[in-house]
Amino acid sequence: MLRPGQTIGILGGGQLARMLAVAAAPYGLRCHIYAPEQDSPAFDVVAAHTIADYSDETALARFAEAVDVVTYEFENVPAHTAAFLAARRPVRPDPRALATTQDRLSEKQFLSGLGLPLAPFWEINGLSDLEAALAVSGRPAVLKTRRFGYDGKGQVMIREGDDAAAALAQLGFAPAVLEGFLPFTREVSVVVARGLDGRVTAYDLCENTHKNHILSQTVVPARVGAKATALALQHARTVAAALGYVGVMAVEMFVVGEGGDEHILINEIAPRVHNSGHWTIEGAETSQFAQHIRAVAGWPLGSATRLGQVRMDNLVGVEAEDWLVLLSDPHAHLHLYGKAEARKGRKMGHVTFVTPE
Amino acid sequence: MLRPGQTIGILGGGQLARMLAVAAAPYGLRCHIYAPEQDSPAFDVVAAHTIADYSDETALARFAEAVDVVTYEFENVPAHTAAFLAARRPVRPDPRALATTQDRLSEKQFLSGLGLPLAPFWEINGLSDLEAALAVSGRPAVLKTRRFGYDGKGQVMIREGDDAAAALAQLGFAPAVLEGFLPFTREVSVVVARGLDGRVTAYDLCENTHKNHILSQTVVPARVGAKATALALQHARTVAAALGYVGVMAVEMFVVGEGGDEHILINEIAPRVHNSGHWTIEGAETSQFAQHIRAVAGWPLGSATRLGQVRMDNLVGVEAEDWLVLLSDPHAHLHLYGKAEARKGRKMGHVTFVTPE
Repeated sequence: MLRPGQTIGILGGGQLARMLAVAAAPYGLRCHIYAPEQDSPAFDVVAAHTIADYSDETALARFAEAVDVVTYEFENVPAHTAAFLAARRPVRPDPRALATTQDRLSEKQFLSGLGLPLAPFWEINGLSDLEAALAVSGRPAVLKTRRFGYDGKGQVMIREGDDAAAALAQLGFAPAVLEGFLPFTREVSVVVARGLDGRVTAYDLCENTHKNHILSQTVVPARVGAKATALALQHARTVAAALGYVGVMAVEMFVVGEGGDEHILINEIAPRVHNSGHWTIEGAETSQFAQHIRAVAGWPLGSATRLGQVRMDNLVGVEAEDWLVLLSDPHAHLHLYGKAEARKGRKMGHVTFVTPE
Repeated sequence: MLRPGQTIGILGGGQLARMLAVAAAPYGLRCHIYAPEQDSPAFDVVAAHTIADYSDETALARFAEAVDVVTYEFENVPAHTAAFLAARRPVRPDPRALATTQDRLSEKQFLSGLGLPLAPFWEINGLSDLEAALAVSGRPAVLKTRRFGYDGKGQVMIREGDDAAAALAQLGFAPAVLEGFLPFTREVSVVVARGLDGRVTAYDLCENTHKNHILSQTVVPARVGAKATALALQHARTVAAALGYVGVMAVEMFVVGEGGDEHILINEIAPRVHNSGHWTIEGAETSQFAQHIRAVAGWPLGSATRLGQVRMDNLVGVEAEDWLVLLSDPHAHLHLYGKAEARKGRKMGHVTFVTPE
């Protein structure tokens, strides 16, 4: 268990690391950010940072010396980096969570093994696998690389008449998974935390809207019936417990069907704080960032109680240029990530509205 | 008006500066802390700091170059420091606010000139002044130095039978003010913000309990009648407007009398974010720290709406050692300031409870 004054090492220097470090400060905990990029947004809010590659063992060893526990803001931490650090300091969440979730196939096998509902999937190692799978799945179906996919990258939809070989080529012939297409009615997620003591607490169900595969808006609570909502929360708790997870994670899900006929299917796991949980900064008693800090510090979790009806709008690319307009609403909670350049598709900030219920 | 990415310079490196810097981060604003003390708590949460004396013009000039606007966390910023910086960058609040509030006599004359109610006071420059004043005020009465008083330092109570000359000696014969003793029923404060556009917004009335002259607990709303409460808020707005103030300030007041016979008397002005406003971090839509940042950035103010019944307990000295007990209540909002040594009387942190109304 960490004591106030000790230091959390964070791998990654983006907005998630930045918000984690800001959440650690009120607890009297220090953060040390490790990231390869100069001018990482998180460097602005800490006294100590390391700029080095994730394979730089000299830098990693020095980083481990300087911190008391290690966590990360992104799921693609190289396995070797995680193992190297875990030999020196507690790494939370455990590198096993990374291993399971970095490979879309092993993640699906893990979820399936827990008896959780997900879309049908097939392992694809070449054209013959793909053609056989498509014969069963029908079209449309979605081909996704097993590794390094995010925000719609590393996936391609195969529609009626599309060439299967071309789809494989588009993904560079990487090992892949084919997923049956889901005519979902809503995309939802559960942000869930598990403490070192094994206690699990889940935030209310989030309903997410994407634009160009990037999260655009989250509203909470999701407009989903009580039965499906309860099931979704239960699934997330099951996943966190089965992974022996310590920290905050998000489980993304689809809702299929409507009204009394809603079904939940799990899409994927993000073993980290998550964009669909940004609303918790003002919208819940304990933010997902504070919750993650408490968990990795080995401290008891805080209350995840929601404080009102919530809407979170992502500010992507030039949308962040409207900051002054957004600020002119005294109830808007504006967040900007300190990124210099508003590239297309880049998450620059978000704005949250909490309406008392 | 500041743009996101620009830098606020903060004079002082204590917990107030620390919480200001943490509040600036979500707006994409950087902070640069200037403080003479090594290991200042605020250094932990910023990428840039300067360790130098407030009279070091080389360091001050370099600091001014590195920031876009200057603010401060304490009222005893030397006049020369404020003037030196104000010649190079906007200083907000304006150094006039410092000049007025650093001298207890000029502060009282200013308040009195606005027609605001305060305890009777007399300028004391020696024993004959004091004896003449005591003859009118009666005893007990309180002798306070004009400058550098805080947390009960620089004041002495003169009771029946006490030696007036001894009281002067106890304050080192410094220029002083004698105040008539107030048999107050409650101590209250108003945290008020004024924007660069002249708009003023006040938080709800705080009721404060002190132990050994140090704030121990704040509850909001204060248990004071509607009429006296409205008057207190109005007084604070009057003060902020009359000073042409930009930023957050606190006006400390006494309530005399009870029930329908409550009267408000102003005690003193703190031209900065204030301990009695710490509850606003979780208890109001916009915290006093975020509000101050918005004001000094020249941005529109946020909503000061209170979110529930609030109690804030200061953690003084060894009280902060109970951090784990406090954390075990999932509804407690714990704040620790990152101070290494829990000296007696030192403010180490605070804990806030917000109960929905």
